[in-house]
Amino acid sequence: MTGTDTIYQNYINRSSMIGGFCAAREAGMSDINRERIEKLRKVMAGEGITAYMIPTADFHNSEYAAEYFHAREYFSGFTGSAGTLIVTADEACLWTDGRYFIQAAGELEGSGVKLMKMGEPGVPAISEYLRGVLDEGGVLGFDGRCVPFKEGKTFEKLAKSRKAGLVIDKDLADKIWTDRPALPCHPVMILEDGYSGEDIDSKLGRLRDVMHENGASVYIDSKLDSIMWLLNIRGADVTCNPVALCHILVDDRNVYLFIQDGEVTGELRAYAALHRISILPYDDFEEFLGIYDYKSDVMYDPDSISYRVRMAAAQGAAKSGNSWELVEAGSPLQTFKCVKNAVEMANIRGCYKRDSVQLCRFIKWLTEEVKRPVSERGPLTESGAAAHLDNLRAELSDYMDLSFETISAYGPNAAMMHYSAVPGVSDAELKPEGMLLVDSGGQYLTGTTDVTRTIALGPVTDEMKKHYTLTAVSNLQLMDAVFLEGCTGANLDILAREPMWREGLDYKCGTGHGIGYYLGVHESPPSIRWKVFPGRQDTPFKPGMIVSDEPGVYLEGKYGIRIETILEVVDHEENEWGHFFAFEPLTLVPFDRDLIDVKYLTPETRQSLNDYHMRVRSELMPLMDEEEQAWLFERTEPV
Amino acid sequence: MTGTDTIYQNYINRSSMIGGFCAAREAGMSDINRERIEKLRKVMAGEGITAYMIPTADFHNSEYAAEYFHAREYFSGFTGSAGTLIVTADEACLWTDGRYFIQAAGELEGSGVKLMKMGEPGVPAISEYLRGVLDEGGVLGFDGRCVPFKEGKTFEKLAKSRKAGLVIDKDLADKIWTDRPALPCHPVMILEDGYSGEDIDSKLGRLRDVMHENGASVYIDSKLDSIMWLLNIRGADVTCNPVALCHILVDDRNVYLFIQDGEVTGELRAYAALHRISILPYDDFEEFLGIYDYKSDVMYDPDSISYRVRMAAAQGAAKSGNSWELVEAGSPLQTFKCVKNAVEMANIRGCYKRDSVQLCRFIKWLTEEVKRPVSERGPLTESGAAAHLDNLRAELSDYMDLSFETISAYGPNAAMMHYSAVPGVSDAELKPEGMLLVDSGGQYLTGTTDVTRTIALGPVTDEMKKHYTLTAVSNLQLMDAVFLEGCTGANLDILAREPMWREGLDYKCGTGHGIGYYLGVHESPPSIRWKVFPGRQDTPFKPGMIVSDEPGVYLEGKYGIRIETILEVVDHEENEWGHFFAFEPLTLVPFDRDLIDVKYLTPETRQSLNDYHMRVRSELMPLMDEEEQAWLFERTEPV
Repeated sequence: MTGTDTIYQNYINRSSMIGGFCAAREAGMSDINRERIEKLRKVMAGEGITAYMIPTADFHNSEYAAEYFHAREYFSGFTGSAGTLIVTADEACLWTDGRYFIQAAGELEGSGVKLMKMGEPGVPAISEYLRGVLDEGGVLGFDGRCVPFKEGKTFEKLAKSRKAGLVIDKDLADKIWTDRPALPCHPVMILEDGYSGEDIDSKLGRLRDVMHENGASVYIDSKLDSIMWLLNIRGADVTCNPVALCHILVDDRNVYLFIQDGEVTGELRAYAALHRISILPYDDFEEFLGIYDYKSDVMYDPDSISYRVRMAAAQGAAKSGNSWELVEAGSPLQTFKCVKNAVEMANIRGCYKRDSVQLCRFIKWLTEEVKRPVSERGPLTESGAAAHLDNLRAELSDYMDLSFETISAYGPNAAMMHYSAVPGVSDAELKPEGMLLVDSGGQYLTGTTDVTRTIALGPVTDEMKKHYTLTAVSNLQLMDAVFLEGCTGANLDILAREPMWREGLDYKCGTGHGIGYYLGVHESPPSIRWKVFPGRQDTPFKPGMIVSDEPGVYLEGKYGIRIETILEVVDHEENEWGHFFAFEPLTLVPFDRDLIDVKYLTPETRQSLNDYHMRVRSELMPLMDEEEQAWLFERTEPV
Repeated sequence: MTGTDTIYQNYINRSSMIGGFCAAREAGMSDINRERIEKLRKVMAGEGITAYMIPTADFHNSEYAAEYFHAREYFSGFTGSAGTLIVTADEACLWTDGRYFIQAAGELEGSGVKLMKMGEPGVPAISEYLRGVLDEGGVLGFDGRCVPFKEGKTFEKLAKSRKAGLVIDKDLADKIWTDRPALPCHPVMILEDGYSGEDIDSKLGRLRDVMHENGASVYIDSKLDSIMWLLNIRGADVTCNPVALCHILVDDRNVYLFIQDGEVTGELRAYAALHRISILPYDDFEEFLGIYDYKSDVMYDPDSISYRVRMAAAQGAAKSGNSWELVEAGSPLQTFKCVKNAVEMANIRGCYKRDSVQLCRFIKWLTEEVKRPVSERGPLTESGAAAHLDNLRAELSDYMDLSFETISAYGPNAAMMHYSAVPGVSDAELKPEGMLLVDSGGQYLTGTTDVTRTIALGPVTDEMKKHYTLTAVSNLQLMDAVFLEGCTGANLDILAREPMWREGLDYKCGTGHGIGYYLGVHESPPSIRWKVFPGRQDTPFKPGMIVSDEPGVYLEGKYGIRIETILEVVDHEENEWGHFFAFEPLTLVPFDRDLIDVKYLTPETRQSLNDYHMRVRSELMPLMDEEEQAWLFERTEPV
């Protein structure tokens, strides 16, 4: 699944995951939004707030947030995955990026909310706008739990520079949004050592070592995937993301876990008792930080805790009377988590093999089904194909969920990277011609998968074959990389990108992202992108990291092609020149030979494609029945 | 000429440029060094200094420094290009890097100076060592003019953390080094617009724009190449580097140039008067900064001025009574300078063509000469070959100097990247077998050249051919790159490096460096290296930048291969996907066909090599006589 280049953490989401763009726009909605914003202005006036900001975020700086956190959508009507609403007495403005200009313009029509197209000439940035509306005596308000500390700090400085006040402890939406969905609350499960590969005590030991290196013996964190990984637990609070809403404080003796009562099972209580984990109410985190008896410096990652949590910790530490400092550092948990251990890797390899078999079964079914007369089979649509694939995944024994809603995009729809078929609204009928792009993945106890294949459903044009072959070359060149220890994604990206650039093409997203273990399908910090962002140091590759390799060609109004193969970083060679690493593919699904035009292959890339297909054949054959084997054999014949 | 990966700015120098390692070690020197250090200790005691640090540097953070600045060598006896000496009452320690461990061990023997091998396990870093020797009441001393501000600041913090004092206004060497060479002082020349392509007023206008963007109307700079470029002047104070020792202060109306009286010609005085440049004594810079009437913030680059200059400016600005701030920013002059204008580029292209012809003449002569009987021609050595090439360059009409001392390294000598032949000490005799590596360049009014070719003198082994062909492939793959605007050297490096890495090889230096226009042969900021250093943002490529492309294979005790081609960044294509750039080769000297083994070429790299050779042929033929043309024709036949 693709990630964006421009906004580092907010990968392109399918809109359905965050609210169902196409279906949601009902008649009269704009009036309802006007009304809601008017109510907000009254509450703002009562609180003395000049400008109130509603970002798209939960309390944990998560990529995906539960419906409880969709306040920006509730007020503005805009359903996209990224955007910030600012309301003043006279204006309501919504900032969003290029992916959503068209969608936002449609959804905001009639609502009185002004669309601020980020990055367009003449459009002020949020900070610039706020500097304009905040005067001496003005007050900027936002829910300080929904803004990561690093970002909140810039707003604090901005308000100060305008001699304006700052209110961060009011969620004004709460007073207006009467039918707000409850915070999600599902029982937590414990991930056995056979899945996690490292017990909680070992993980805590490693965390405490880093704390001590930083002169701290207290660590606070709100990042959900970090906490799930550390405690070997999983939740079900966010669609496709097996996380539970929670916060932690870790000190030299104990772990304090702040979590809703409804998530705590008897099993979790026993497990917690065994590992010195004190379970406390989710809502008490900030209060606890205010009264905790600090005995050393406190370490935190400014992206992993909110502005309000940081404030509470600072106040608590100051109260302790020893002037303990708050030590800012990268999250050790994010760093640990992305390097999979031997047990995780063994599970993942098996998981990807089984997942690949199901995708092969899907491709076999799809390409046969689409050729049958419609009169016999009935209409076959994008969403129908996706449902068939989802059912195949659900058959697997350790299947838990999808890792994201399956993208099934036919013809020109595939040129939109974040396209989502919605039955009855936008759901193209598949015909025995052109290409279907399918980007999908599953959550399993043995890993999280993510794979894209673009499939010929019948006759295709020469241009399609050329672009598919280019994409295949890009994918294979990265897969075949050999590189020295210390290399980052910024060093390697050009191996995938160069074949495109040479043809005057590009894809407007990164080449690859990290992937969690039965956790987020997008996992920081690993990434493969050529652009380097100031202040962000890329993470060098290490054996045990897994990353996607997903170049593509997207031609608006015509078609979209993406080939996504998940790669494992492995040891290659160590000699006098250094330690060399390489990649091994985890995804084992054939490329589409019907879309390969050999004249765009070099002898090396041709060999590489055939080698990959031989590997797919030998790894998957044993897991298939005879008919499937025959099919795979033919699909993996050398080109 | 190669640059190092580990130390960004201190490119590998040939030792001869900074003092002549091989020849310098005389009998009894170690006793002399002992004596000198004892004298230094006495002076230190008199000044109350606990630890005195002598870095390898001038007052301008230059890559190469004149002999006046060789105090570290004077005291320690170590002649390498990089190293720091710290003397305390009990110890004298010299830190240097891996390139010099063997040389330093030899040169320090018997001197009582302890060698600190940087980066080796158990060896404290300089800061760590200083923390150990500085206690409360201790005093750290160094000449604050020889330490760039950024670095000086870290020593200031270190001393403060130890509650130790800091003395930065004493050059203790001056009191002991009685026969110290004078500061170099040569007349300055003015570079006409036909060479510079942009007059001083236009350059000053651009500088002032950036100053204003940063809220400053005063700018200070001590970086010599920056000042030469800005004022369109050149000097002769450092071997092979056409710079004059000077500092500047630029404000909205005037330029104040601080330079030795002996450098100022009548022509310069007239030119200065015409362009509102006030000429002031070189030594008065700091004093002037203390009394200048500041009317706004002061902008500076922390790498371009010394610790003492920054201190003087801060004191002066504070005295002005308006609490003007010192605004730290990257040097706009370094940024401007590296993008050559149309006049410079046209000059450079012609210059490289003529320089390439001379190198071809050299290769023709060399390969013929070495095959003649020794009885006829007499012995032919590394330095003899270099002298022949140097003479050929000196024949060119706009020749001014070499751009660095020619590296002529035969057989195993070429495996040492910083090898320098010294007649009578180390000067291998060339035989009609194996390979000679020649890295050389000239300073011309029309540009600065830098080129390396490795030449077969007779029969070579299959391994040599394999490694030469690999190097050629590396060189060509980078030369053929097509890339989007925004790319840096860190993105592109792997195009050159991948063929090496795939074979388990590497070269322990960057792939490329920027080059000045009749200025330094190593010019920041452009560079092509894969390693990214914290806190240093790479500079994206722009048309008009020129960079070297110099991969190599270095096998200790066996041989060294380097192929260095200078590339110009050019526009390639602009379309809906962005603005694409590419490279064009400026260096036009054939690769050695006798060293190419076609079995290591792909069809693409084979084509690329033949294309390059066709270009060399068509560009150089018109500048050659008939015999030379026949020779070039044969050397550029398709492989």
